[in-house]
Amino acid sequence: MISETIKPRFLETDALGHINNTVVPGWFEGARDPVFRWFTPDLDVKRWRLILARFDVSFHGELYYEYPVELRCYIGRIGNSSFDVYQEAWQHGEKCASGTSVLVHFDHQRKASIPIPEDIRQLMLQHLYPGEAR
Amino acid sequence: MISETIKPRFLETDALGHINNTVVPGWFEGARDPVFRWFTPDLDVKRWRLILARFDVSFHGELYYEYPVELRCYIGRIGNSSFDVYQEAWQHGEKCASGTSVLVHFDHQRKASIPIPEDIRQLMLQHLYPGEAR
Amino acid sequence: MISETIKPRFLETDALGHINNTVVPGWFEGARDPVFRWFTPDLDVKRWRLILARFDVSFHGELYYEYPVELRCYIGRIGNSSFDVYQEAWQHGEKCASGTSVLVHFDHQRKASIPIPEDIRQLMLQHLYPGEAR
Amino acid sequence: MISETIKPRFLETDALGHINNTVVPGWFEGARDPVFRWFTPDLDVKRWRLILARFDVSFHGELYYEYPVELRCYIGRIGNSSFDVYQEAWQHGEKCASGTSVLVHFDHQRKASIPIPEDIRQLMLQHLYPGEAR
Repeated sequence: MISETIKPRFLETDALGHINNTVVPGWFEGARDPVFRWFTPDLDVKRWRLILARFDVSFHGELYYEYPVELRCYIGRIGNSSFDVYQEAWQHGEKCASGTSVLVHFDHQRKASIPIPEDIRQLMLQHLYPGEAR
Repeated sequence: MISETIKPRFLETDALGHINNTVVPGWFEGARDPVFRWFTPDLDVKRWRLILARFDVSFHGELYYEYPVELRCYIGRIGNSSFDVYQEAWQHGEKCASGTSVLVHFDHQRKASIPIPEDIRQLMLQHLYPGEAR
Repeated sequence: MISETIKPRFLETDALGHINNTVVPGWFEGARDPVFRWFTPDLDVKRWRLILARFDVSFHGELYYEYPVELRCYIGRIGNSSFDVYQEAWQHGEKCASGTSVLVHFDHQRKASIPIPEDIRQLMLQHLYPGEAR
Repeated sequence: MISETIKPRFLETDALGHINNTVVPGWFEGARDPVFRWFTPDLDVKRWRLILARFDVSFHGELYYEYPVELRCYIGRIGNSSFDVYQEAWQHGEKCASGTSVLVHFDHQRKASIPIPEDIRQLMLQHLYPGEAR
């Protein structure tokens, strides 16, 4: 598991009094930075090697402004050139949101997907989700 | 179909030069306003009747800053108290993103889901997605 | 005056029930698109010619989610290579926010400011703010 | 000085390759949380006591996605019911942005400004900006 703890921002709330649902994909993107670094160690966008094909988020409970949020990040399915990142947002000991992003290792020059290198595949195996993704 | 055309904002791009993926759920939320009005005609948040249980977005092509985006909104599955909204983002004649949100008709006071009223069900039937959601 | 009417988004509200203050600079940036087009007619970011040196926003009244917002855009001071854009956000016949952005005509290659061309200066004069900026 | 270090998010970049300018007011709002806590110790929005009258941001250098940002927060002018918060964003040893927000101690029930309590005034004096705000 890769874990990051963030402080929600006031602007991320909405008029219903909680964190707005559309904020969570941005939190999850930020918490995937360590995964991005496997492919682009200095995070230089000119050498970016990934594209996002799809994501989903399920909401299990309200997220609040006042308390820190732990973002947990696991690797799910590992394919040839694509892989799943499964993430959870925890607050106050409760899993409030979870979701899966499908990323593709991609050569932006040649506009083609490329296999995941073996060394990165080994890193991924150290962060596999231990259960059934939900 | 419910259609809305928006102008992407410069701040919605990212360093890869296109619209950032995490922006799309916010666009889709905005384009669901006509659906929100079925449940809360004046959009008064104090009488809000819906919660979002889940959403997914698939990315089919890059979205750009320079051109308008048409957001198409359909009703998918209609359950007892929950229903699916299926949406697409079109730019330059191309479907660039699509996704489904699961909404629940909800009584925030009693913290309980409530059946979709028959008159709203009739409105939904006028906006059904004519194909297989993808 | 250059005018654009937008629909606030639910996610732009905050837990106090109104549009969050930090949203307004993004609205104003979007409403400056016609100004950006004077310098980069096709809005191609690879040929971008402006940098933002400074902005301020004053809040005169609450902005709400439910109603459209008119964004009015004027040119203020015109310098040699820099100029001011003065903007207002109106809702329900009330001026709710206003602010000035200082933009600089800039050569990103040479990292140097460059004079505003005479033809753009003429366009600017057609959109001067008729009063005292406030 | 009140200091907070954040990690920029990929979505906060724009197509010019740097952090978008309109992101900074949100960072500054987040970094004012300790000031908000002086007035509402548990950050419960139902007991919120402040309104934002105005803010400005000046940009001195580009902010990048790859490096942490330190947000420094000082108290500037202290009036009867209003006060200034002066903030800076530092990255890589360089001050990249700075700005002042004018906040008003406010009774949302009575819709009236109220004097800053003496104990909070004492807290403010411990965080005064030591130089000339710029």
